[in-house]
Amino acid sequence: MNNFVFYNPTKIVFGKDTIKKLNKLIPQESSVLITYGGGSIKRNGVYEQVKQALGSRKVFEFGSIEPNPHYETCMKCVDYIRENNIDFVLAVGGGSVIDATKFIVAAYYYETEDKWEILETNGQYIKKALPFGTVLTLPATASEMNNGAVITKKATLEKRAFHSNYAFPKFSILDPQTTFTLPEKQISNGIADTFVHVMEQYLTYPVRNQISDRFAESIIITLLEEAPKVFANTMDYDVRANLMWAATMGLNGWIACGAVQDWATHMIGHELTAFHNIDHGTTLSIVLPGVMKIQREEKGEKIIQFGERVFGIKEGEKQEIITKTIEEVEKFFKSIHIPTRLSEVGLDEKCIEPIVQRIKDRNWSLGENGTINYEKVRLILLDRL
Amino acid sequence: MNNFVFYNPTKIVFGKDTIKKLNKLIPQESSVLITYGGGSIKRNGVYEQVKQALGSRKVFEFGSIEPNPHYETCMKCVDYIRENNIDFVLAVGGGSVIDATKFIVAAYYYETEDKWEILETNGQYIKKALPFGTVLTLPATASEMNNGAVITKKATLEKRAFHSNYAFPKFSILDPQTTFTLPEKQISNGIADTFVHVMEQYLTYPVRNQISDRFAESIIITLLEEAPKVFANTMDYDVRANLMWAATMGLNGWIACGAVQDWATHMIGHELTAFHNIDHGTTLSIVLPGVMKIQREEKGEKIIQFGERVFGIKEGEKQEIITKTIEEVEKFFKSIHIPTRLSEVGLDEKCIEPIVQRIKDRNWSLGENGTINYEKVRLILLDRL
Repeated sequence: MNNFVFYNPTKIVFGKDTIKKLNKLIPQESSVLITYGGGSIKRNGVYEQVKQALGSRKVFEFGSIEPNPHYETCMKCVDYIRENNIDFVLAVGGGSVIDATKFIVAAYYYETEDKWEILETNGQYIKKALPFGTVLTLPATASEMNNGAVITKKATLEKRAFHSNYAFPKFSILDPQTTFTLPEKQISNGIADTFVHVMEQYLTYPVRNQISDRFAESIIITLLEEAPKVFANTMDYDVRANLMWAATMGLNGWIACGAVQDWATHMIGHELTAFHNIDHGTTLSIVLPGVMKIQREEKGEKIIQFGERVFGIKEGEKQEIITKTIEEVEKFFKSIHIPTRLSEVGLDEKCIEPIVQRIKDRNWSLGENGTINYEKVRLILLDRL
Repeated sequence: MNNFVFYNPTKIVFGKDTIKKLNKLIPQESSVLITYGGGSIKRNGVYEQVKQALGSRKVFEFGSIEPNPHYETCMKCVDYIRENNIDFVLAVGGGSVIDATKFIVAAYYYETEDKWEILETNGQYIKKALPFGTVLTLPATASEMNNGAVITKKATLEKRAFHSNYAFPKFSILDPQTTFTLPEKQISNGIADTFVHVMEQYLTYPVRNQISDRFAESIIITLLEEAPKVFANTMDYDVRANLMWAATMGLNGWIACGAVQDWATHMIGHELTAFHNIDHGTTLSIVLPGVMKIQREEKGEKIIQFGERVFGIKEGEKQEIITKTIEEVEKFFKSIHIPTRLSEVGLDEKCIEPIVQRIKDRNWSLGENGTINYEKVRLILLDRL
């Protein structure tokens, strides 16, 4: 088991009809900015619930935050906050809105003129941020309970992450009822995102870390059990609750304790989004099976453990179990109606070299052993055509 | 899945040679009080490591905190802090030292003259506490990562708990190497304590809470796997690491999310400690099988799930599976060399009525359904002779 440091002070308020608790969670005298995305919160009743809970507080709005939120959009919001003397930000939405909000609250106080530096330095020089909370409406990224965010610079098509303890939400409200109206595509993307978050922290090599291993498997088993139910009955509260909580668990740090991590699938997936604007979850379901295949030797022991404990694959030679397990993962993605091939999102092999070139230029060595260089990235993407 | 609120801001620093990190975790200008118990930390090298890490800080000591720590002892420590202008407390030890420290730091600022009120009001009127951290040396209670403490009033033999967000440690250092020298009895008590913490939050009735259920089972499976190893080889680091982390997970709130809780075993066990000074972990291994037997109908569904997922019991009628599962639990306790009968700790049926009378006087209805009254407590204890 590896040494680790764990810290996560975000308060979670989870369950039915919990949005009204905003009234106790945000200081009474605050000037609150609501940040949101495409406006679905105005159609599904969430916006109304939030406004009502905020009562007599002074409320401002900043909407139209895009998926894979842009640095440029965030900077407009920072200006808006400055103009209006806002002192609390409430992100209402999914991972994109929350990630944007994390960047906004940090950029507001950031001293360097060029705030993109936050992304270039992984947030290490952030010294202060505006307080913020979230009302989650799309379970997927776990941004509601972690200190990370991913931002895209439109001008250069760069997608980068930062982390900072100032980027923990003060609180996050998770009412599974807000997810009843999600389009199927977002459900699929959210489940794939959760699945791959878990795998990035689990499918590496064994370090006798029994609890985190079994916690990770618990989340995946929950996804396998609940995913078919959500497509069969979109209004089942308990299914929604389990999927929502699973998504948070996927990246709130709990299963990372003492674990060896990978993150190659995300790094490659981010490039697919940056170049071709593919949904984040979809890039992951496309890339992961390729990473598993190309890394099947390095990851062999954990793939076998995963196959046995999660899919019940117990018969056969080691290589056979590994192959079957990778097939099961791809089969699961298909069962939740999400692409696993580049061709399914309209891409062909022409998409590969620009990404390979970028990995090469950056001299990146990805994966838990740092063995995934640009040549392996090429092999992974060729496998996914 | 039930609604819940989760909040836990304690920073965990886990792993080999982590005690030296104290130097960065405690403000440089602090006057630090080290609280500890019987003095084992002076024999096993932990005290030396702590002193060295604290460097030039002004350091005071308050030792001899007893197991099941006394209110009376704690109040002496409060006076000592006042006399010496101490501004940071560092608990070095197990659950008793940490629990005592939580009470001490809260009592220091508590306004009411009679500080026992903290226990009588479950800590709800605590408004401030001295900052404190811990160096854990005995994995068992999870006090190092929660906001609860149990204190005993020697004068009246009352053992009571309190909870407060001011009772979260700022940080806890968990170096599994500190547990290499634990006496076998403390290892057994710690494992039993962890086991029963998990059961109190799991073995109730199902509410379709898939993640917390499987997390709970993960911890128990880890105990079943690692416990035999710790008795076979007391110096295996990874075994110690897994048992230490399992103990923290047992009661840091993670598996309580959305779960229905019981705590009858603890409430009855506390009385055995209060009257007869039986080790806390031992009271639990004695009482739990009795609670499972007497509550076998109410808990039936979860006992069956537990038997199947944890012990692999799949054959047989429902009642048979329940009986077998309870037997397996008692068998596990025996395998870790801890008593499961009152007679093994020198008690006979004379011990029962004073406890029954106290439950009756307090008009307690224990358990997840509030159905365990004094008459059921009598049945439970009669079963454990």
